[in-house]
Amino acid sequence: MQTVKGKVTIPTDESFVDGTKEIAAKWGADAVRDCDGTVLPKNAKDLGKVYNTYFIVRGDNDWARKHPEEAQRIFLLSERVLATENSVDIPFMNGFLRDEFDPDYTNADRWEVYDRTVGEKVSDWTVDKKTHVITVKNAEKMHEYTVSFMARITWHPVQVYNYITNNWTCEKQLTYDPAYPNTKEYIKRHMREWCEENKDTSVVRFTTFLYQFTLIFNEQGKEKYVDWFGYAQTANPVLMDEFEKETGIKLCAEDFVDCGHYNNPFRSPAEKMKKYSDFVQKFVSDTVRELVDICHEYGKEAMMFLGDDWIGSEPYGKYFGNMNLDAVVGSVGGGVTVRMLSEIPHVKYTEGRFLPYFFPDTFFDGNENNAVAELNRNWLTARRAHMRKPLDRMGFGGYLSLAAKFPKFVSRVTDICDEFRAICDAVGKNKPFTTVKVGILNAWGSLRSWQSHMVAHELWYQQIYSYQGILEALSGLPAEVEFLSFDDVRDGVPKGIDVIINAGDAYTAFSGGREWLDVKLQTSIREFVYGGGGFIGVGEPTAVSANGRYFQLADVLGVDEEIGFTLSADKYNIQKVKHELTDGLKEIDYGEDKKNIYALPESKVLDIAFSDRFKRNVNVGEVKIAVNEFGKGRSFYITGIPYSFENSRLLYKALMWCANKDLHCAYSTNINTECNYYPSSKKYAVVNNSAAEQTTDFYDVNGKKQTLALQPMEIRWITAK
Amino acid sequence: MQTVKGKVTIPTDESFVDGTKEIAAKWGADAVRDCDGTVLPKNAKDLGKVYNTYFIVRGDNDWARKHPEEAQRIFLLSERVLATENSVDIPFMNGFLRDEFDPDYTNADRWEVYDRTVGEKVSDWTVDKKTHVITVKNAEKMHEYTVSFMARITWHPVQVYNYITNNWTCEKQLTYDPAYPNTKEYIKRHMREWCEENKDTSVVRFTTFLYQFTLIFNEQGKEKYVDWFGYAQTANPVLMDEFEKETGIKLCAEDFVDCGHYNNPFRSPAEKMKKYSDFVQKFVSDTVRELVDICHEYGKEAMMFLGDDWIGSEPYGKYFGNMNLDAVVGSVGGGVTVRMLSEIPHVKYTEGRFLPYFFPDTFFDGNENNAVAELNRNWLTARRAHMRKPLDRMGFGGYLSLAAKFPKFVSRVTDICDEFRAICDAVGKNKPFTTVKVGILNAWGSLRSWQSHMVAHELWYQQIYSYQGILEALSGLPAEVEFLSFDDVRDGVPKGIDVIINAGDAYTAFSGGREWLDVKLQTSIREFVYGGGGFIGVGEPTAVSANGRYFQLADVLGVDEEIGFTLSADKYNIQKVKHELTDGLKEIDYGEDKKNIYALPESKVLDIAFSDRFKRNVNVGEVKIAVNEFGKGRSFYITGIPYSFENSRLLYKALMWCANKDLHCAYSTNINTECNYYPSSKKYAVVNNSAAEQTTDFYDVNGKKQTLALQPMEIRWITAK
Repeated sequence: MQTVKGKVTIPTDESFVDGTKEIAAKWGADAVRDCDGTVLPKNAKDLGKVYNTYFIVRGDNDWARKHPEEAQRIFLLSERVLATENSVDIPFMNGFLRDEFDPDYTNADRWEVYDRTVGEKVSDWTVDKKTHVITVKNAEKMHEYTVSFMARITWHPVQVYNYITNNWTCEKQLTYDPAYPNTKEYIKRHMREWCEENKDTSVVRFTTFLYQFTLIFNEQGKEKYVDWFGYAQTANPVLMDEFEKETGIKLCAEDFVDCGHYNNPFRSPAEKMKKYSDFVQKFVSDTVRELVDICHEYGKEAMMFLGDDWIGSEPYGKYFGNMNLDAVVGSVGGGVTVRMLSEIPHVKYTEGRFLPYFFPDTFFDGNENNAVAELNRNWLTARRAHMRKPLDRMGFGGYLSLAAKFPKFVSRVTDICDEFRAICDAVGKNKPFTTVKVGILNAWGSLRSWQSHMVAHELWYQQIYSYQGILEALSGLPAEVEFLSFDDVRDGVPKGIDVIINAGDAYTAFSGGREWLDVKLQTSIREFVYGGGGFIGVGEPTAVSANGRYFQLADVLGVDEEIGFTLSADKYNIQKVKHELTDGLKEIDYGEDKKNIYALPESKVLDIAFSDRFKRNVNVGEVKIAVNEFGKGRSFYITGIPYSFENSRLLYKALMWCANKDLHCAYSTNINTECNYYPSSKKYAVVNNSAAEQTTDFYDVNGKKQTLALQPMEIRWITAK
Repeated sequence: MQTVKGKVTIPTDESFVDGTKEIAAKWGADAVRDCDGTVLPKNAKDLGKVYNTYFIVRGDNDWARKHPEEAQRIFLLSERVLATENSVDIPFMNGFLRDEFDPDYTNADRWEVYDRTVGEKVSDWTVDKKTHVITVKNAEKMHEYTVSFMARITWHPVQVYNYITNNWTCEKQLTYDPAYPNTKEYIKRHMREWCEENKDTSVVRFTTFLYQFTLIFNEQGKEKYVDWFGYAQTANPVLMDEFEKETGIKLCAEDFVDCGHYNNPFRSPAEKMKKYSDFVQKFVSDTVRELVDICHEYGKEAMMFLGDDWIGSEPYGKYFGNMNLDAVVGSVGGGVTVRMLSEIPHVKYTEGRFLPYFFPDTFFDGNENNAVAELNRNWLTARRAHMRKPLDRMGFGGYLSLAAKFPKFVSRVTDICDEFRAICDAVGKNKPFTTVKVGILNAWGSLRSWQSHMVAHELWYQQIYSYQGILEALSGLPAEVEFLSFDDVRDGVPKGIDVIINAGDAYTAFSGGREWLDVKLQTSIREFVYGGGGFIGVGEPTAVSANGRYFQLADVLGVDEEIGFTLSADKYNIQKVKHELTDGLKEIDYGEDKKNIYALPESKVLDIAFSDRFKRNVNVGEVKIAVNEFGKGRSFYITGIPYSFENSRLLYKALMWCANKDLHCAYSTNINTECNYYPSSKKYAVVNNSAAEQTTDFYDVNGKKQTLALQPMEIRWITAK
C-alpha cells in the first residue's frame, strides 16, 4: 500500500462513523460529503474536509411564497391546434405539468400567437384566464396555430422526476430568480446566514447556481422536453429588458421557443440568442461571484456541481473565471466527462463522481461481482482520459455502509484510488506528449468544449452516439484537442492544427449547415488542406444542398451524398481498395451509419457495402470509408464512428495519416492497449484497457520497438532511455 | 386451340420463311418485323403486316457531313477545376467522349464560365480553340470553376454503346436537327422517298423521332450521364431563339446544365424549363405530324417506338394527339411498362415487346428451362397490368430460328398468346371494376403518367425501387389511378379521388420539396383528408424543413422525421399495435427504408424497429409503418414499399382502409392471387400470380364468398350471378 494518500472524497453518515474511518484509511479519503437522506456525523471534520450541498434559487418556499412575482420564468410553446372553423380555441396548458408551470398573465403582452402553417404571428386573439384558453379570431381554416406564453416556474424541474417516481409527499420546491433585485439581496443574505450556521463546512457544494437547464414535464409528470444546454428558463422579463437596454435588441417569445426547438444545441445558433446567452452568462457570473466572495470570507471553498442549474455558468465561456470558484465537481460516465471536467480552467481543482453509486439497486446481496464489473468498466473508460489530463480528485456517492458489505468491491476501489493517485503523480500538471493537434470544427467551438452532440447529460440517444464516439476516442488519445467555431477558422485555420474534424448530421450546428455557403469558410478549409492539412469528415460533413453539391467540400473529402439529384451521373468508383488505415481492422462499427454516400472518381474507397438485391458494375454500393488526396493534404471520410477500441484506433490512424505523420511514435500496436508518454517525467505508460492479458509491440518516440505482455487492466510504466 | 388469332408480332428473317409460317400459325401472329442484322424475306407481306424501322435524325451521314452546322446540340458542363493561382485553366472536354461531342465555337457567345464555389457567372476568360482549354483570369484562389459549353453531337449516343461494346468498325452515325429549316425540308423529302422505295412496309416503326434522351459518354466510351427524360439534347440555338421570340424568355447555358443536374426528373422543375419543354413538345409534334401525314399518304401506319429519341413526344403531353400516330410500341419489363404503354391516348393501338429477346445469350443449348422461366416471370408480372388495361398487341424480338429450337418455349408462348387474346376479349376497351380512386401527387403529374421515380428506362437503381414498387403494385390493382401535379390540387383535390399518394426522398420532385411551403397546397390536402379523404406517404412525403417540422403534413401523417432538431422532445409513442392492415402479413419489405422516423402521440405505430444497442422506454425505435386519423380522414405512412406480393397487398389494404371502404368486395384473400371484375362482361377473373397451386377465398362485389383452388399461373374466369 502506498503511503501518499488523499484526493478522494467519500460519502458518510452519522450512523457509520467507524466504518467510514476504516474505509477512508484504505482508500486514502481526505474528504467526506453528505448524500440525499443522510446526515453528516457531528464530528465530520475529524474525517477530513467536509462538503455540504447548497441551493441558491430553491429550497426556501417561504421566500418564494412571499414573492410569487419573482419566480423563474420560461416561454412555453403550446401544442399545435388545427383551425377547422374561422375561430380556433387553444387550451395552451395542454401537455404541460400544471404544478410545474403557471401562466404568467402579468406578462401577457409578451405572449405570441402564431399561424405555424405560414410561420407568421397573428394578433387577433383573446385569452380566458380562468380556463387558460386562447381564442384566435379570423383564423384560416386548415392552418395550425400555437401560443407561446410566458409561465412562472412553480416547481423546480429537478425535483419533479424524483418526487413523482418515488411518490414523495414533501412540499414541492418553488423557484425564485435573482434577476429581481429583491431576491438578489435575499440570496446574498441567505448565503451569509448559512455560512454562519455551518461552521464545519469546508466546501460549499453549489448543487444549483441560478438557472436550470431546459426541463419540461408533461401533464402525466413525464419528461416532455430536455436540453442540458437549454437557456429556456432564463427568459426573465428583467433580464430581457436590461438586455434590450444594453444592446438595442428586443427579444420576443419566438426567439426563445424557436418553432418548438427551443434553440437546442443541434440548431445553428441564432445571432440574437448567442448575444443573449452571453448577457446571461455575465449576469450569472456576476451574481455567483458575490456568493463565492461570501464563502471565501468565511474561509470556505466554493465548488460548482456541473449538472442541474448550471445554465449561464459555461465553464468554457469567457465569464467563468470571474466567478472565482475553487472547484468543479461532476459525475463521470466515461472519458468525455472526465475531460469535460478536468480541462475546465480557472479553478484550483476538479473532482469526478465515479460509478457505481452506492445505492441498493446495485448493492444488494449476491450482486458483488456485478458491482465490481461496473466499477472496472467505469474506471477503465475514464482512465484513458485520466492518462491525458487527470481530474484532481475522485469520489463516490451513496451509502458507504452498503459498499462496506462488499469486501471485493472495497478492495478493488482501494487499488483504483492508488492507481488514480499514481496517474496524478506521473502526469501532474505537465502536458503529456502529443503526436497530433486536432481541431473539432462546429458552430459552438470552444464554448462547448467536450460537449458536442449531447442532448441530456450522458444519456444515450440513437442519433448521437455515432458522433460522440469521436470525443470519447479523443479523450484518451495522444492528440491535442482544440474546439473551433466556424468564426475561428473563417480567416484561416489557426497555426498548429494538423487535422480538422467536422462531424454531424446535415444542417445541424455540428456539421454546420448553411455556414458552409460562406465562401470564406469554404476557401479557408480548402486552403488549409491543399497546403498540407488534414480533414476528417464523419456522417454528413459540410452538408448543405447548393451549387450542385450536398457536401460543400466534396472535392476535399472525395465523397458526396446521393440525395436524388445525381442519380443520372454514373458512379464507377465502387472498388474497395486495400489501405494501411483499414489493414488489420476486423469489424468496423459505423453505428447509425449513413446511406447513399458515393465516391468521386479520384478518391480511394476503403469500405463499401452492396445491396444483395442487384449486381452491377456501376451505380451500386454505399461508401463507408474513403480517403482522398487534395493538393498536399489528405482527407478521411467515415459514415459514423461510435466508440470502441477498434474505432478509436481507426480514428487515431486516420488522424496520423491525414497529418502525414509517423504512426509508430510512442505507439502500442495492440488495439486493446494504448501508449502515453510523459516527457517531464521521462516515463511511458503502456495501458491495457481490457480485462484480459494482452501482448503488444510498443514503439518509443524514436521508433524503437519492444514487445510487452500486459496483465489485465495493467498500466506498465517504462522509463525512457 | 382457340380459333381467333392475331394481335401478335414476330421477328422474321429471309432464311427462316417456312419456320416463321409454322410458328406464326401456332402463336397466331399476324405481323412480322425485322431485327438488327436480319433481312426481311422478299414476300414478307404474305406473312402478315410488315413493320420496318425508320430513323429521322440519323442514318444519312452524307447529309450530315454536308451540313455540319445543322448537327444536334447540347450544353455540357465541364468538370470542376480548382483555382490554385489567380488564373485557372479548364480543359473543358476532359471527361467527355471526343467522338460524341465537338465544341461549338460558332455559338461561343452562349458559353458560360461559373465560379461554382459562390454560384456566380464570371466573364473574364479566353478560350484556346486548338487545345479546347478555357483560361479564367482574375480567378479566386480555392474556388472551383466550370465551363458550360455548347457542343455539336457528332455521334448518335444510342450507337455509341453497341459500337464500343461490340468493337464495330462501321461508320459512326452523325446527327442532324430539323430545327434547321434546311434539314426540316430534307427529312420530309427523305420520308417520301423512303415510302416510295418500301412498298411492302405496312407499318413505319419510328425508332427515332427528333431528340435523343440525355446520354453522355466519358472519354473511355463508358456511360457518364443518362436521363431517360432529359431534354439536354434539345438545346438548339434556333429553337432557343424562337422560344425567346415567342415568350420573351432568354435561356442560358445554366438553364440547361442546372449545376450539373441537367434538370433530371428528380429535380423540382424550373418554371422556365417547363415552358421550354412545352415549346419543344409543340415543335416535335408539328414536325413528326408532317412525316406521319406522308406515311398515311402512302397508306402506311406510323408507329412510335417509346425508347430512344422520344424526347419532346411526351405520350401523356398535350401535343401528342396532334402527331396523329397510329400506334406506339415499347418493351415490357413489368406491369408499369405495360400501363405506361397501354394507357397512351390518341393512338389506334399499343404494342409491347416481351422478354426474353431471342438472342444467343438466352437461347443456347441446354438453357431452355431458363428461357421458359424468364418468359413466365415476364408474363406473370406484365399480366397483372393486362388484366386492368391490356396492350392491344404483343410481340417478340430477336432471331425466331433460335426460339424454334426450344419446343417447350414455343409451346409456352403459344399458351401465352392465347391467354393474352382471351384477356383482350374479356377486358376489351371497357373499364374493369375499380374499388378505389388513387391520385399520385408529384411535381410532374399526368405528363409523366406511369413514369415516376425512373432514371434510365427500366434500369434498377438502389434509390428508386422502394418507390417504384407503388406503381408496379398499382399497375395490377383494381384502383383507378390518376397522376396529379401540385398545381392540379392547389385549389382543391379533384372530385372522385379517394386517396392521395405522395412518395419520394425529401426535396425531390416526387415528394415535392419546397412546393409544400405553399400554404394553398398544404391546406388543400388537409381539407381533403379532414373531410374524409385518404393520404398515403412513402419515404419522406411532404418533407421540407420549415416552421418546426420536416414533414409539412406531419399532423396528417402522424409521423415526422428526426433530422436532429427535435432530439430534445421526448417520444413515447413507440408501442407497436395490432392492426387489420398488418394482420397476417409476415415479412414486410421496406426496401431502402428510412431512418429516424418517429410517431406523433396521436398516431398508431404498426411497425417499429429497435436498435439492439440500448433499451429504454422513450426516445428509441424507428417507425416503419404508422396510421393516423385526421378529422374524418385517414392516413398511412410507410418508409418504403418495393414491389412484392405481400407489399402490393399491404398497399391495397392501406388504400381501402384510408378510403374507408370494404376490402371484401371483388377480393381474393390469398396474397399470391388477385381478383378482377369486368362488369360489362359480368366476369370475374381470379388470377394466380404464382407458379404454385393456391387456395383462396374469393369475395364477389356483394361480399359473397367462395373458396377456390387455383392451378399454377391460372386465371379462373367466374361468371357473375
